[in-house]
Amino acid sequence: MPQSPPAIPGMREEEVDTPALLIDLDAFEANLDTMAAKVAAAGVKLRPHAKTHKSAVIAQLQIARGAVGNCVQKMGEAEALAWGGVHNILVSNQVVGASKLARFAALSTLAQMAICVDDLAQVAALEAAGRDAGKRLTVLVEIDVGGRRCGVAPGSEAVALAQAIAASPHLRFGGLQAYHGRAQHFRTLEERRTAIGVTVDDTRRTVDMLRQQGLACEIVGGAGTGTFEIEAESGVFTELQAGSYVFMDADYGRNLDGAGAPVSTFRNALFVLATVMSAPRPGIAVLDAGHKAVAIDSGLPLVWQRPDLRATSLSDEHGKLEFGPETTAPKLGEKLRLVPGHCDPTVERFDWYVGVRQGRVECVWPIAARGAMY
Amino acid sequence: MPQSPPAIPGMREEEVDTPALLIDLDAFEANLDTMAAKVAAAGVKLRPHAKTHKSAVIAQLQIARGAVGNCVQKMGEAEALAWGGVHNILVSNQVVGASKLARFAALSTLAQMAICVDDLAQVAALEAAGRDAGKRLTVLVEIDVGGRRCGVAPGSEAVALAQAIAASPHLRFGGLQAYHGRAQHFRTLEERRTAIGVTVDDTRRTVDMLRQQGLACEIVGGAGTGTFEIEAESGVFTELQAGSYVFMDADYGRNLDGAGAPVSTFRNALFVLATVMSAPRPGIAVLDAGHKAVAIDSGLPLVWQRPDLRATSLSDEHGKLEFGPETTAPKLGEKLRLVPGHCDPTVERFDWYVGVRQGRVECVWPIAARGAMY
Repeated sequence: MPQSPPAIPGMREEEVDTPALLIDLDAFEANLDTMAAKVAAAGVKLRPHAKTHKSAVIAQLQIARGAVGNCVQKMGEAEALAWGGVHNILVSNQVVGASKLARFAALSTLAQMAICVDDLAQVAALEAAGRDAGKRLTVLVEIDVGGRRCGVAPGSEAVALAQAIAASPHLRFGGLQAYHGRAQHFRTLEERRTAIGVTVDDTRRTVDMLRQQGLACEIVGGAGTGTFEIEAESGVFTELQAGSYVFMDADYGRNLDGAGAPVSTFRNALFVLATVMSAPRPGIAVLDAGHKAVAIDSGLPLVWQRPDLRATSLSDEHGKLEFGPETTAPKLGEKLRLVPGHCDPTVERFDWYVGVRQGRVECVWPIAARGAMY
Repeated sequence: MPQSPPAIPGMREEEVDTPALLIDLDAFEANLDTMAAKVAAAGVKLRPHAKTHKSAVIAQLQIARGAVGNCVQKMGEAEALAWGGVHNILVSNQVVGASKLARFAALSTLAQMAICVDDLAQVAALEAAGRDAGKRLTVLVEIDVGGRRCGVAPGSEAVALAQAIAASPHLRFGGLQAYHGRAQHFRTLEERRTAIGVTVDDTRRTVDMLRQQGLACEIVGGAGTGTFEIEAESGVFTELQAGSYVFMDADYGRNLDGAGAPVSTFRNALFVLATVMSAPRPGIAVLDAGHKAVAIDSGLPLVWQRPDLRATSLSDEHGKLEFGPETTAPKLGEKLRLVPGHCDPTVERFDWYVGVRQGRVECVWPIAARGAMY
């Protein structure tokens, strides 16, 4: 059952029911604009990952600023975007099973679709899906460029898979997926440059080998919020897939720039608003948001602009803050903004975004692909 | 937007779309029956916590076996249960804010309701809510019996709060909430006995002091799946609030009995069914379920009945399994059951339970309170 929105436009932020997922619209729009300017300057395309926001509304705001479309991980995400008017969607992932592939093929009546493979069996399965649907499906080869997760080896393995796609009557070879997820969170610029240097070399070599076989890569996609400037200047990547830049989170806040300072390209725009529900002893306040509301896979949340309040443990429905005697204790009923450790899975917990600007609720937007896991 | 169910009754388990949340109905019913027999033998009441299952359907199965009602943490959970025919609900938690308290008062037309406080300000807020609704609300005092989270100190602090409740014309003192959450997961029986020994002593002392003031505790509630047998035999607790027993999880599987063997009172009944979506290199298989599908706050999932397959990392949408050369590699498209590290937040990720019995889907049940955070 979907939950009703915790706010209505016009409310003051402190009237929003909690826990609620807030977007600071000023910071959010600044992030959209900053990224749009950066990719335009670099001469590459932006195809932001919608696994972060799960929202056709936000996708449209990205596209209005020049993005070519979106990436998704799951068929349910692709459907939510296509049904919300997004006309160009890359499933940047393997999708296994005939029913899911039939849904993929069906969506190509609404949007320009592409999908990734890393196995010959998947080429055959997609060929069958294209044949059954009477459509020609665009398929990219995912290469493992350091993530050690999905993807075939760069080079000849990738070429063999691309040739199999090109030889399939209902498929079209669309290019390469070359994303190094772990590298996004390497803390120093040096570490990120080193890792993505290898990614770029592997990708360039594979693109060249494909070209020698007469196979052009229309899309060479990858990059995330932590490394996109490196892929952008590579001359190899045609599309950047950063997603988290729209919101940022505490974990990305620990990435450092070349001078050793926290990277400050984008602003924190996503918060979980929580209420102090118990203040039983000095030095302790308990919030009504636990890890069912704020993802903790990448560490505990921070309290926004309150470094004197430390989130020290989150259980299912409780968030415990601790503080020293010099701190004015948060009062029962007081509302605080938490900066999630990790934005993507935090969004996944909620049905609604509450957009706020300078203390007022300006909009509520559905998180249409919340729970779209299959 | 709610997701459509990933299965229909009659399907074979291997036809279920993934990731999906499975209940093994034989194991689940055995767990319900085992707990019902144990509380009956101990002469205490069972008020299972619905924060685990978030389902009026499962609540009804518990009540049909003798449970007096359910506990919840959130008003949205209380509403989902009351709307699904549960007539006796304890909000075993502090709830702050006038709109939430108005919802609490409103629900008492559908169900016998009770709620907890640990602050005088909350007594006043509940009195106002009762007055506004023209109702008399039942309020319990939460005492801190070792959890170091919410709750006033046992003894005189609790008595003062109970007296304030009893002196409020629209409130009724209902008893004590005395739950020690952390102790549920202390690994040895000795550690659990020691911790709950203190809990029981603190609770008994407070009950006695209240009685001396003419305040009877109709409800003395607490206990979880890890310790309920200790509270049951205490002679002090009237109601046990265990929740996880219906499903169990990998974390509870690490609790040991008096002989040092894993506690085997209840069976694993909850699984996330996942599909191998990529098998790019020897020794590796990648599942289509990451930590958006399987909670990892209490550790990584286990692969059911496949100790040779180790889940070594979960990212948002990917679950990586590793295995040695002696293992027959899982094939692309193969479906595997994962035992979640922690059942409660895993349930929270899904819209539907898929009930299976001996390889067949027997039912799909909505998780009506999924996302009910406020």
